[in-house]
Amino acid sequence: MEKAQIAVVGLGVMGQNLALNIANKGFPVAVYNRTETKTTEFIEGPAKGKKIVGTYSYGELAKALEKPRRILLMVKAGPAVDAVIDQIKPYLEPGDILIDGGNSFFEDTERRNKTLTAEGFMFVGAGVSGGEEGALHGPSIMPGGNRRAWEALKDIFVAAAAKAEDGESCVDYMGPRGAGHYVKMVHNGIEYAIMQLIAEVYDVLHRGLGMPEAELGEIFTQWNAGSLSSYLVEITADILKTKDEQTGKPILEVILDEAKQKGTGKWTSQNAYDLGAATHAINAAVSSRIISGMKEQRVEASKVLKGPEPVFRGDRQQLIDAAKEALYAGVILSYAQGFSLMGLASQEYDYKFDMKRIAKIWRAGCIIRADRLDDIMDAYDRNNALDNLLMDRHFREIVMPRQGAMRYFITTAIGMGIPVYAMSAVLGYFDAFRTARLPANLTQAQRDYFGAHTYRRLDREGSFHTEWLGSQPSED
Amino acid sequence: MEKAQIAVVGLGVMGQNLALNIANKGFPVAVYNRTETKTTEFIEGPAKGKKIVGTYSYGELAKALEKPRRILLMVKAGPAVDAVIDQIKPYLEPGDILIDGGNSFFEDTERRNKTLTAEGFMFVGAGVSGGEEGALHGPSIMPGGNRRAWEALKDIFVAAAAKAEDGESCVDYMGPRGAGHYVKMVHNGIEYAIMQLIAEVYDVLHRGLGMPEAELGEIFTQWNAGSLSSYLVEITADILKTKDEQTGKPILEVILDEAKQKGTGKWTSQNAYDLGAATHAINAAVSSRIISGMKEQRVEASKVLKGPEPVFRGDRQQLIDAAKEALYAGVILSYAQGFSLMGLASQEYDYKFDMKRIAKIWRAGCIIRADRLDDIMDAYDRNNALDNLLMDRHFREIVMPRQGAMRYFITTAIGMGIPVYAMSAVLGYFDAFRTARLPANLTQAQRDYFGAHTYRRLDREGSFHTEWLGSQPSED
Repeated sequence: MEKAQIAVVGLGVMGQNLALNIANKGFPVAVYNRTETKTTEFIEGPAKGKKIVGTYSYGELAKALEKPRRILLMVKAGPAVDAVIDQIKPYLEPGDILIDGGNSFFEDTERRNKTLTAEGFMFVGAGVSGGEEGALHGPSIMPGGNRRAWEALKDIFVAAAAKAEDGESCVDYMGPRGAGHYVKMVHNGIEYAIMQLIAEVYDVLHRGLGMPEAELGEIFTQWNAGSLSSYLVEITADILKTKDEQTGKPILEVILDEAKQKGTGKWTSQNAYDLGAATHAINAAVSSRIISGMKEQRVEASKVLKGPEPVFRGDRQQLIDAAKEALYAGVILSYAQGFSLMGLASQEYDYKFDMKRIAKIWRAGCIIRADRLDDIMDAYDRNNALDNLLMDRHFREIVMPRQGAMRYFITTAIGMGIPVYAMSAVLGYFDAFRTARLPANLTQAQRDYFGAHTYRRLDREGSFHTEWLGSQPSED
Repeated sequence: MEKAQIAVVGLGVMGQNLALNIANKGFPVAVYNRTETKTTEFIEGPAKGKKIVGTYSYGELAKALEKPRRILLMVKAGPAVDAVIDQIKPYLEPGDILIDGGNSFFEDTERRNKTLTAEGFMFVGAGVSGGEEGALHGPSIMPGGNRRAWEALKDIFVAAAAKAEDGESCVDYMGPRGAGHYVKMVHNGIEYAIMQLIAEVYDVLHRGLGMPEAELGEIFTQWNAGSLSSYLVEITADILKTKDEQTGKPILEVILDEAKQKGTGKWTSQNAYDLGAATHAINAAVSSRIISGMKEQRVEASKVLKGPEPVFRGDRQQLIDAAKEALYAGVILSYAQGFSLMGLASQEYDYKFDMKRIAKIWRAGCIIRADRLDDIMDAYDRNNALDNLLMDRHFREIVMPRQGAMRYFITTAIGMGIPVYAMSAVLGYFDAFRTARLPANLTQAQRDYFGAHTYRRLDREGSFHTEWLGSQPSED
């Protein structure tokens, strides 16, 4: 029998769909799942008639593969990845390639890369975005790790990945060690930010304007036909128009408002703090999910903590238009923050990121795909050392004229008592970034006052300390 | 010679001042510093004539102490603490007490506690706040770890700590293992938040109203005499009134606007993300320090990213009053976020925090001391299971009537293009917390759409998944 060119271990929905996708592109696939029945069901079901062979032990799996073996792990991020690697290793030979296609934390990927490399294996940590459907029809794939392994995987991944409008495949080598999972982490951070910005727009137009879901759905459909054209705006339109089968109500009316998270957004924010990156929008989105999870507390608080009525008395169309332009600027600023973070990470971890390449492979297949990614590619084409998208004329000319819309949207929402923390974070970032002198001079003076931490001056070099007026603490 | 009752290792300013403070209270102190000259200088200088003995080896230090030995480490947080512990251990006996008085990360304290306890020593991780002056005249001390060790330290710490107005000493046992350093970490997180809120008020009144520093200093002095009475407001007034000796300008005019950080605020935010705590104000403060650090980028950006002129045309006094009330509400909300975080940590790490006791020892000596801490004590007295200060009537009645001031302050600043990210974060928290239904239903729907993550419903139990309208990704 023909040897399989790649194995997929772990037949969850993502694993199954990737196996089908790869087989559909003409590459024979061997699959393995811990629970045998799942393998059998897959082989006799969706995989029937395709170049997919089921195996029921790691030994069998290893025999079914051509060498060097390519083994794609699609198991739950965390200890399960280590467990599977430990179990499969005895059946492998030096030079075999292990690929972790899950949402692993990049530091775990760094550790696994080190261990496996020392043992003679080749390891690839590959971020995969696109959800179930993306896995089946073409995800965006962000592989990092051993470059020779990437060369050996390229044909398969290029065939399986989503294609951008220019026909280019949405997969490319991201960099060494944990680079692939790092890029996927930031992808998800940006995803969190954009989702929260959309949620705030929905809240302001739905609660503030009293606009029914279906009407709002039409607006998102229109937006998706223009400058906001993107997957997340598109699915928002679909969701707004979807009715609950059981009650006939708009489905959003019945869905519990507790946003869950799997950690990738949180990791982005935590890592940005370590690297000193300003990821305001991502942080605000993570915090917004957290506060959404405090449902019981919120319900109790709503009974006693009263604010303004969310009633809008101005020009409705003006607010709708402002929401659109604010969302557009907010999305651009979220990308700007994510790309700047990757710039710092590239230095910190020596990932040598090629920003243009990252923008290129996010153009299709992934959750944050948007027409604007082409423009981001162009910006890095003009200047591959660009440290902030806002410093590119094209993006500056998108954001600057829309700051008025952001200001109007936010102040209107604040007046109605509707929380717009992510949009405020985006504007706070924009206003701080474009301010030559921030009030951090006071912060430094305070630190010097109570902790003798010293400060620097604007007019000369060196560290300075002041004996402050009355600096004896008051109770002494 | 009389044996010393406690040793201080590390004669930086904090260590020197704590040694002097303790000796001034009548307890003989032995001191040690790695660089011998520093010990000699201290003994022959500030310590002259006091019950302080210099030692020049760990063996000598151990001999100078009564048993069980009490050794307070005042060395730089991080590897230096482990190094000193390793070097000193050979001279110690089981039952001896090691106290880490630095700003150690609580997880390091957890680890050290485990190791040292297994070796028969008693370990205490003690947060110390108050800066140099506090160390000398009375800091707030937050000890955690071995409770028997605390009993053996109590007399010394109670004597050395700051005294609140009711005469109570600002030190108490916080809880087991890393509890003391955890409380200190959150203390610093709240400190970051309040400092940033003050910075934003300064920026809006100084840049927006064009108010000179000295005039603003007078305003802060007035505020400090009322509801805002607190150390940080007091020193802000002093700083605003201080002139640079070299140029004669207000000192703030010459201080570089790059706020540094030593990590405690960042740790608070990162830990809050792990625990699922909503610490919007702290996070925004950390992010604001980060963006302040991007001075060169900001200067470049300011040349091309234009916004509204920071010119205010309304009623000046109205904005000044709003700033005061917004700051007051913002400070309360910062405490609320910090205390809620400690509530979650108490469960997560089994610290069994007594919130009232924490508020009690923050009333004097520490950087975030304020008259309001008495009210926080009272709130936890009324209900020691209070999970958010906003659910206490007293605090609700402070914040609710001031939300209008917050809204006015923020929207005015936004209109002038002055970044008020921390104040926006505080209001975003307030508005989200008091909203029974947030737009996170849309977020959950999106997650189910692209990732089949399922959602819960408001009207029945269980997990649900929808086959969404047109859920085939568009490019397929």
